[in-house]
Amino acid sequence: MYNQVQIGVDYYPEHWDESLWETDIRLMKQTGVKVVRVAEFAWSRLEPTDGDFQLAWLDRVIDLFHQYGIQVVIGTPTATPPRWLTTNYSDVLPVFADGRIFHPGVRGHRCYNSPSLREYGSRITRKLGQHYSAHPAVIGWQTDNEFSMIDCHCENCNDAFRNWVKEKYESLEVVNREWGTVVWSGEYSAWNELTVPLGGSPHQNPSFLLDFQRFQWDAVVVFQKSQIDILRSTCPRHFITHNFHSYPQRLDLYAVSAELDVAAFDYYPNTSPLKQETTPYSGALSLDLTRGIKRRNFWIMEQLSGSPGCWMPMWRAPYPGFIRAYAWQTIARGADTVVHFRWRSAVAGAEQYWHGLIDHSNVPGRRFAEFSQLCSEVNALGGRLEGTTLNNEVAILHSYEQLAALHIQPQAEGMDYYENIKQYHRAITKLGMGCDVIEWKQPLDGYKVIIAPSLYLLDEETACRLEDFAAAGGTLIITNRSGVKNMNNIGVMQPLPGLLSHAAGVRVDEYDPIGSEMHTVVDAEGQTYTCSQWSDLLTPTTAEPIAWYGDDFYAGIPAVTVNVFGQGEVYYLGTHVEESYWSVLLTNMAEKHKLMHFAGLPDGVQASVRTGESGTFLFLLNLDRKPQTVQLARDYNSLLSGTLRSGQLALEPYGVEILEM
Amino acid sequence: MYNQVQIGVDYYPEHWDESLWETDIRLMKQTGVKVVRVAEFAWSRLEPTDGDFQLAWLDRVIDLFHQYGIQVVIGTPTATPPRWLTTNYSDVLPVFADGRIFHPGVRGHRCYNSPSLREYGSRITRKLGQHYSAHPAVIGWQTDNEFSMIDCHCENCNDAFRNWVKEKYESLEVVNREWGTVVWSGEYSAWNELTVPLGGSPHQNPSFLLDFQRFQWDAVVVFQKSQIDILRSTCPRHFITHNFHSYPQRLDLYAVSAELDVAAFDYYPNTSPLKQETTPYSGALSLDLTRGIKRRNFWIMEQLSGSPGCWMPMWRAPYPGFIRAYAWQTIARGADTVVHFRWRSAVAGAEQYWHGLIDHSNVPGRRFAEFSQLCSEVNALGGRLEGTTLNNEVAILHSYEQLAALHIQPQAEGMDYYENIKQYHRAITKLGMGCDVIEWKQPLDGYKVIIAPSLYLLDEETACRLEDFAAAGGTLIITNRSGVKNMNNIGVMQPLPGLLSHAAGVRVDEYDPIGSEMHTVVDAEGQTYTCSQWSDLLTPTTAEPIAWYGDDFYAGIPAVTVNVFGQGEVYYLGTHVEESYWSVLLTNMAEKHKLMHFAGLPDGVQASVRTGESGTFLFLLNLDRKPQTVQLARDYNSLLSGTLRSGQLALEPYGVEILEM
Amino acid sequence: MYNQVQIGVDYYPEHWDESLWETDIRLMKQTGVKVVRVAEFAWSRLEPTDGDFQLAWLDRVIDLFHQYGIQVVIGTPTATPPRWLTTNYSDVLPVFADGRIFHPGVRGHRCYNSPSLREYGSRITRKLGQHYSAHPAVIGWQTDNEFSMIDCHCENCNDAFRNWVKEKYESLEVVNREWGTVVWSGEYSAWNELTVPLGGSPHQNPSFLLDFQRFQWDAVVVFQKSQIDILRSTCPRHFITHNFHSYPQRLDLYAVSAELDVAAFDYYPNTSPLKQETTPYSGALSLDLTRGIKRRNFWIMEQLSGSPGCWMPMWRAPYPGFIRAYAWQTIARGADTVVHFRWRSAVAGAEQYWHGLIDHSNVPGRRFAEFSQLCSEVNALGGRLEGTTLNNEVAILHSYEQLAALHIQPQAEGMDYYENIKQYHRAITKLGMGCDVIEWKQPLDGYKVIIAPSLYLLDEETACRLEDFAAAGGTLIITNRSGVKNMNNIGVMQPLPGLLSHAAGVRVDEYDPIGSEMHTVVDAEGQTYTCSQWSDLLTPTTAEPIAWYGDDFYAGIPAVTVNVFGQGEVYYLGTHVEESYWSVLLTNMAEKHKLMHFAGLPDGVQASVRTGESGTFLFLLNLDRKPQTVQLARDYNSLLSGTLRSGQLALEPYGVEILEM
Repeated sequence: MYNQVQIGVDYYPEHWDESLWETDIRLMKQTGVKVVRVAEFAWSRLEPTDGDFQLAWLDRVIDLFHQYGIQVVIGTPTATPPRWLTTNYSDVLPVFADGRIFHPGVRGHRCYNSPSLREYGSRITRKLGQHYSAHPAVIGWQTDNEFSMIDCHCENCNDAFRNWVKEKYESLEVVNREWGTVVWSGEYSAWNELTVPLGGSPHQNPSFLLDFQRFQWDAVVVFQKSQIDILRSTCPRHFITHNFHSYPQRLDLYAVSAELDVAAFDYYPNTSPLKQETTPYSGALSLDLTRGIKRRNFWIMEQLSGSPGCWMPMWRAPYPGFIRAYAWQTIARGADTVVHFRWRSAVAGAEQYWHGLIDHSNVPGRRFAEFSQLCSEVNALGGRLEGTTLNNEVAILHSYEQLAALHIQPQAEGMDYYENIKQYHRAITKLGMGCDVIEWKQPLDGYKVIIAPSLYLLDEETACRLEDFAAAGGTLIITNRSGVKNMNNIGVMQPLPGLLSHAAGVRVDEYDPIGSEMHTVVDAEGQTYTCSQWSDLLTPTTAEPIAWYGDDFYAGIPAVTVNVFGQGEVYYLGTHVEESYWSVLLTNMAEKHKLMHFAGLPDGVQASVRTGESGTFLFLLNLDRKPQTVQLARDYNSLLSGTLRSGQLALEPYGVEILEM
Repeated sequence: MYNQVQIGVDYYPEHWDESLWETDIRLMKQTGVKVVRVAEFAWSRLEPTDGDFQLAWLDRVIDLFHQYGIQVVIGTPTATPPRWLTTNYSDVLPVFADGRIFHPGVRGHRCYNSPSLREYGSRITRKLGQHYSAHPAVIGWQTDNEFSMIDCHCENCNDAFRNWVKEKYESLEVVNREWGTVVWSGEYSAWNELTVPLGGSPHQNPSFLLDFQRFQWDAVVVFQKSQIDILRSTCPRHFITHNFHSYPQRLDLYAVSAELDVAAFDYYPNTSPLKQETTPYSGALSLDLTRGIKRRNFWIMEQLSGSPGCWMPMWRAPYPGFIRAYAWQTIARGADTVVHFRWRSAVAGAEQYWHGLIDHSNVPGRRFAEFSQLCSEVNALGGRLEGTTLNNEVAILHSYEQLAALHIQPQAEGMDYYENIKQYHRAITKLGMGCDVIEWKQPLDGYKVIIAPSLYLLDEETACRLEDFAAAGGTLIITNRSGVKNMNNIGVMQPLPGLLSHAAGVRVDEYDPIGSEMHTVVDAEGQTYTCSQWSDLLTPTTAEPIAWYGDDFYAGIPAVTVNVFGQGEVYYLGTHVEESYWSVLLTNMAEKHKLMHFAGLPDGVQASVRTGESGTFLFLLNLDRKPQTVQLARDYNSLLSGTLRSGQLALEPYGVEILEM
Repeated sequence: MYNQVQIGVDYYPEHWDESLWETDIRLMKQTGVKVVRVAEFAWSRLEPTDGDFQLAWLDRVIDLFHQYGIQVVIGTPTATPPRWLTTNYSDVLPVFADGRIFHPGVRGHRCYNSPSLREYGSRITRKLGQHYSAHPAVIGWQTDNEFSMIDCHCENCNDAFRNWVKEKYESLEVVNREWGTVVWSGEYSAWNELTVPLGGSPHQNPSFLLDFQRFQWDAVVVFQKSQIDILRSTCPRHFITHNFHSYPQRLDLYAVSAELDVAAFDYYPNTSPLKQETTPYSGALSLDLTRGIKRRNFWIMEQLSGSPGCWMPMWRAPYPGFIRAYAWQTIARGADTVVHFRWRSAVAGAEQYWHGLIDHSNVPGRRFAEFSQLCSEVNALGGRLEGTTLNNEVAILHSYEQLAALHIQPQAEGMDYYENIKQYHRAITKLGMGCDVIEWKQPLDGYKVIIAPSLYLLDEETACRLEDFAAAGGTLIITNRSGVKNMNNIGVMQPLPGLLSHAAGVRVDEYDPIGSEMHTVVDAEGQTYTCSQWSDLLTPTTAEPIAWYGDDFYAGIPAVTVNVFGQGEVYYLGTHVEESYWSVLLTNMAEKHKLMHFAGLPDGVQASVRTGESGTFLFLLNLDRKPQTVQLARDYNSLLSGTLRSGQLALEPYGVEILEM
C-alpha cells in the first residue's frame, strides 16, 4: 500500500482558482507523478464556520485526481485551527512561559492538551475519515503537520502535567525523593504547588525538567492517538503516517511514531555552496534516522523543489542536478515514495518564497525539466526497487532522553550530543559503510558494531543489554558522559562510567571539561590526534589503554581503552577525538568484522545498497559541484543507462549511478 | 514666511531658571540667531494638571524674543503627554504586541488612535493656537515631534484597524481574497476575528502586514490632521511643519507631509572619523530625500551642535569646522532655515549628554565660536540665497511601500532597499551630479534620467507612467525584484519583471538569491565587476545585453540589458553590481544627456548648485579631515571671501566655498 | 569569635541520607576542618508546611558536629522561600518590569519589600535563633544568601518607593526640582503618578533612576535588619555575617554590611588557562574590596573546590595546586576563616555540576588530597597568623553610587568604572604594593596615596576631605569624569572638574569621548603611551602639565597635570592611559613616599604582608601554570617548611611560600 517506489507532489487546490486544477493535474499525469498530498492546512475551507462542513470542493479535486490515476494522501488539518475556533475557544492557543499567547498567524498555534482542539479536531477528522473512507483515489492519511514541541504553559497543561506526575509517582513524597526537590527548598507540600516550568529562570531542577519533556512527548502521542483511533475505525484499509521535519528535534519521534504505519520526513538539504561539504552527510544522517524510526523504509512527504525562503532570506537556487540527486539520495537510503514540495510556488500567504517545482509565473522551467527526468527514471526503476531495503551491520544508538538531559544541563562548551553523532556518522558514511541509527532501547540482534554515544542517563536493563551484546561477540563503543545519571536525571554515587564500568573495564578518576580548547591524544603508533570537549582521566581495571593524553597535567594518562568482554570487546573513549581517529578505528573494525564498505570514496560521493528479492543495488551519488571519479572493483550493469560500467566511473556534478550487484 | 536663509536654535526656557532667559536671548541676538523653536515638550508646564493652563511663563519668554527681534516657532507638546494624563487615561499609552505597556519615561508614549490623546491634544493645541495667533514674534508651528511608527496593539487600534479594513475592502469576502488568507486557514469568518498583528510569530500573511503598515501611516496622518485643522483655523497666517528624524523610517513621510507647508528634518551627521567616508554621502541622501518630500526647499529643525549621547555612549566631539560645514551642506542641498539643537546642554533629564552649542558649564567654547562664524556668514549671504533652489535632471524614485514590503519578506541576505539606494545616490554624488529623490508616484516631467530601484510592488498606472517617460526620450533604469507583486503584496502570475517586461524587453527565466556571496559580471569591454544579492537569469526579448554573468552555472547569461523604447531607453540590472559599474553607467549617460556634473571631485568633497533670480551659486564642501584641492574650470567670484577663485582651489579640512556662476 | 585562621566547609545534611552524616563528619574531623555552614537553603525541611517547624534533624546533625568538635554557622533560609509560601502568598514573588513574575525554581525568588516574606522570614529566623542560641557548637549566623538586586516592580515596591521618596524629599515640588522632571513633561502632579521604573524604555530620568537604586539598597538593608534585630536579641553571643558574591555588583555592599560583625565573600577564581593572566589580579581586587567593606579581616564563606557548572558549560578542572594556592591568596589578603564550597557535589537539583571537594562518586580524589594538605598547613600556622592583618599606605576609593550613575548614563564606548579600577589595582599589585580599596566616604587617615577614579557625582564634603588629604601632604590622583554631577545626578553648571577644580588646578575646556579608539599621550621624557575612552582638553590654572596629547586636533594640549597643593600634590588624568603609564607613575610615588613594595615580581606572582603582635609575614604566591623565581633581598625563615630561604626563591606552579620578616 505504501511501499511503491514513486514520485509525488504536495498540492494545495484551495490556493488556486478551480480553473487551474485540471491543467495542473493533467501536467502531473504527463510528468509521471503518482501520488499527491492535500488538505493538511485547509480547515478554514473544509469548515468555514463552526459545524458548516464544505467538502464538495475537495471531492471535485480528488475525483479529478482519480480520473487521472493519481493517488491521494489526505492531511488532517489540525495544525492550522481556523480563526472562528481560536477566537471562540481560547484554550486552543498555547501560552508561553511568560504568559504571552501564541496567536494565530503561522501554523502550529494549538495546545496539544486543549479540550476544544481535541473536540473540534476529532470532529473534522471523523468527518474526513467517514467521507473519504471508500474513495478509490485515497490511500492514506497524514496526521496534522510537522509536530514539534510547543512548551505550552496554560492551565490545561498544568492540570495535565499534575495528572501525569501523579500517575507516574503516585505521591508527592515519591516526587520529592525522585526529583531531589529538597535542594533550594523546592519540595512540594500540596499538588497545587506543582506547575509546568514557569518564567523567571531557565535554571530549574533537572529531574523536573526532564519529566516535563517526557510529559510533552506523551501529550503529542495522546493528541495524535485521538486522530489515529478515528482513522483506524473509519478507514481500516488506509495507512497512516506523519511528516517529521528536521533533526535534532526536541520531540521524541520514536514515541510519536509507535502507532503509525510508516514514518515520513520533510527533507530540505541546504542549497548553499558554502554548505556543500556538510549537507550531504547531515542529510544522510537525517535519512538514516528516519529509516530507524520504524526500522523500515519510509516516505519523504516534502522534498526540496526550489529555493526555500519567507521568514528568512531566500536560499540559493538549487544547482543543476541538485533536485534529482537529493531525491535519489532519499531512495538510496530507504525512501520509497518521494513527495515534492510543492507543485507551484504560492502567490499569497506567508510561504510565498518557499519555491515549488513551478515558479509564480506558472511557466515550467529548468527545475521542472529536472523533476520530469527524475519521474521518468523512478517510474522506470520503481518495480525493481520495490521491496528492497538496507541491511546494515553497524548501528548508532540515538536517544531523545539523552538529548533532552544534555540540553537541560550543558556539560562543556562545544559539547553537543547531536553534533557528536554527526561526526561518528560522517566518518562511517565516508568509508562507504552502511549504518543504522536506532532508538537506544531497541534490540541489537544482527549488528556487529554498536556505537552508543554518551549514555548519560542509564538503567540496568540497558547496561545489561549492552553487556550481552558485547559478550556475544559484538564490538561496543561507548564514550565519556556515560552512566552519569539514573533515569530520573539524578547523579549516580559510584565512579564513572557507572553501570558500564564492568563492561568497559575502566574507572574515571577525575574529569576535565576542556570544552572548545584543543588538546591531544597519542595512540600506540605514536600518531597524535586533536581532542576537545571533555577529558576523562582513566584508570583501566581490566581494559587495555590504546591512546593517551598528550598534554596538560594528565599527559600520559589513558584516554581511550579497549576491554575484551566475553566474545566481544568494549571501547571507551574518554575524550572527543577528531574524525580521522574514528576513521582509523572504524577501518580496523571493518577489517576485523568483514564489514561491507566502499574504500576510496571521494569526498561528497556517497554509496549505499538496497537489497531484496529483486536484486541488490548499489547507489553511487556525487553530491558535489565538482565531477568525481569512483574506482569500481568489477563490471556492473547500470540500471539507469542499461549499459555496463567498469574501472573508473565518472560522476558529473550531482551525478547519479545505480549498479546491479 | 518660511523661506529666509537663516540660522536658529532650539531653546527650552522651562529647563532654566528664569534669571538666565534674558542673558541667553541677548547672546543669541549678538550671535546672529534669527529664530527659535520652543515648547514642544513642555506640556506639563503649560497644563500642570487637567485643565489648568499656565501660559504666562511662555508669554514672558516669547515677549523677550520679540523684544530682541527673534522669531518663534512653537511645537505642539503632544509627543510628551504629562503624567496626570497617562495616569488617569490609560488609553493614551501604547501597547506592545505581547501586551506590555509603553510606559512614560521617554517621549513618544502615546497611541495615535487614543481618544483621550486626541481630545486632550486638541485642547492644548487650540489653547496655544488661540493664544499665540496674533503674537508678532510667532511665525509658525511644529506639530508634535519626530513622528515614528509605534506598532500599538491596544483595543482602540484593533477597532480602528477593523474600520480601516472595512472602508478599504467593504466585506470579509474581499479581504480574504485580496489578502489570500486561505493559506494556513487564515480566513476571517467574522469581523471580530480581525486584529492588529499580535504576538506569537512575526511570520504572518504579508498582505495583511503591508496593510497594517498603511493603516498605521494613516493613523499618524489623521492624528496630525486634528492639530493642523485647529492651527489653520486659529492661526491662518502661520506656517505648519513637522520635524522628521533619520532615514530609513518605517513611517511614510510623504503621506504625513501632505498637509504641511514645509518639511523639516533633524540632522545629526556622525562625528566619528571611522564614519568619515560614508557620513557625507548618507547625509546628502537624507537632505535630498527631505527636499523631495514637498519637492521644494525645507527646514532643518535640529542641526548637530555637539556630541550626541545619553542612551548610548557619547559620540566623538565634532572636529573643528564640522558644525559649520555640515550646516552649509544643508543649505547647499535646499535647506533655508537651519535651527541648531540646542542652545545649551541640559543639566537634567534623560538627554543630558546630547550636547548643545554651549556646554553644561555655560561657558561658550570652541563650538560656539564656530557657530558664531556660521551665523555671520549666513546672515551676510542669506539675501542672495533666498529664493534659490536646486534644479536637477536625475531622480531616484523612493517608496515607503516598497521599503515595507521588502522588510516584511527579506529577499536575500544583505539585500536592503535603502542601502541599495544609498549606493546609487553615492555614485551620483561623487560625480558632482545633482539628484532629486522623490516619491515613486510623482510626475516625472523635466527629468532626463530616472532610477527606479526594485519596484517590487507595481500597478498598471506606474508601469504606464514609466513607459511614457522612456517613450518620450527619458532614460529609465530598473533593477531586479521589480514587478513581483500587485499592490496587495500578492505574487503576479507572469514572468518577471511583470508589468515592466514590455518596457525592459527582457524575460527573467529563473533567479538565484546569491545574497552576500560575491559573484561577477563582465561588460562588453571585458571589464569584470563584482555583484551580489541577486541574479536574474535574463533572456532579452527586444533588449540588447550589455553585461553577462562571469561565473556559476549561468556564466555567459545576460545580467544587464538595455532596450530602446520609443525615443528613450530602459536599462534592466538583473543583479546588484558594485558602485564603480554605476559610475561608468552614469558617466556615459551624463555625456549622452549633457547632464550637469562636476568631474574629478576628490572623495569627501561635494558640489551642488542653487539657482534663482538672484543668481546661480556653486557650493563646494570638503567634508573630510584632510585638505583637498578642486580644479576650477574658470574664474569665479567667491561669495564668502568676495575674492576671485581660479585654477586649483584649496579646501582646508571641513572647508567651504561658495562661488557665483 | 570569628578571627581564627582556619578552614571550613559548606555542608548540606538535608541533601544526604542520614546514614552518611557521621561518616562525612568523621572525615571532616580527620582532615582538619574546623567549621561548617549549614541550613541556608533548608526552609522546606525546617518548616515543611505553614507553622510546622521540624528542627529535630538539624539538632541531630549539629549535635554530631559538636561531638566531633566542629563549629557551626547557620544561614537563615530566606533566599529560598518554600513552595507553600510562594503559592499561598503571591506577594513573596518579585515582578519584572514587564509584569512577568519571577517564579520559584532557582533561589532568590523573593521581593525584599514583601510583607509576607518579612513576616514568615522573621518567624523562622526567630525560631532558629531561639532554638540554637545556647547550642555549644553554634558560633554565628549568615543572613539569607548572596543578596543581589532584583529590580522588583510589584505594588508593594511601588508603595515602598513612594514612601522612600516622600521621606527624602517631603514634597513633589522638591522631587520635581531635584530630579529635573520638567524635561519631557515628566513632572509629577500627584503621588500616585510616581512608580518604580516600568517597562517600555530603559531611557528614563537619570536622577530618578539613581534614587531608585538607592531605594533598592535601602530595601535590602531594612529586610536584613529585620533578621539581625532578631538574632541580636536571641543570640547575643553569636556573630552575624553575610556572604556576598562577585564584583562588580549593583548592590551597595557597604550599606548592607553596616550592621554586620564581619564581611564574607564567595570566591570562585576562574580555572581556565585562558584567564590565567587576569584571574589572579581581578581576584586580588575582589579580596581587597571585601577587606575594605568592614576595613578589617573577613571570611570566605564559599571557596572554589572543583569545577563550577550547571547553568553554563562546566569550567575547566582546577590545575594541581590551584585550590590550595587560591585559598592561601585569600588569607594573604585578609581572610581568616576559609569555608570551602562544598563538601561533596550534589547528586540532585539545579547545582549538580557545581563541584565540591568530593565528587558524586563519593570517592575522595586529587582535589580532596590537596584540600587535606591545605587544612594541615593552615592548622599548623593558624595560631601565628591569628590577629595579623594588612596595613597599606595606598588606597583606591570605590563607590556604588558612581558605579550606578555611570551605568545609567554610559559615557564613552569601552569606558567602565570597574574595569578602570581593575587596571589601577593591577598596576599596583604587579609592583608588589599593598593597596586598600575602601568606600569613598571613609576617613583617609594613614594613607600616603589616594586614587579616586571618576568622582562623577560629587558633594562639597568629599571635595573638602580630598583637599584636606592633599593639603596635609598626601598624593591624590583624580581622573576625567570627576565633579560632573551633584549627588542627585544633575549636571553642575561650572567648568570641570567642578568642585575639584581648585585642588587639581586645571580647567577642562572641552572633552572628546574617544571611546575604544586608541590615541596617544607623550610625557616629559618623550615617551609615548596609548590612551582611550576620553580626552579632556586641559588648561592648567595652577597645575603643571606632565603629559600632552599626541594626536588629533588637540595634539600638544595637556592631558595629565600635577598640582602642588599645600604639603601634597594632586594629579589629574584627563584621559585613560595604558597600564604601563600607571606603573611609571606609581613607581615614582613609591620612591617619593618610601612606599613598601616588591620590585621585580614576575607576572602572576603576588606578594602581600600580614602584620600583628605575632610577627610580620610575607606571602609569595605563584598563581600561574609555569614555575617562577623570585629574588629575595635577604634570608627569611619559611613558615611552611621551617627552613631558611634566600637568594633565588623557586616557586613551582601554584607554589606558595610564607616568610617571616
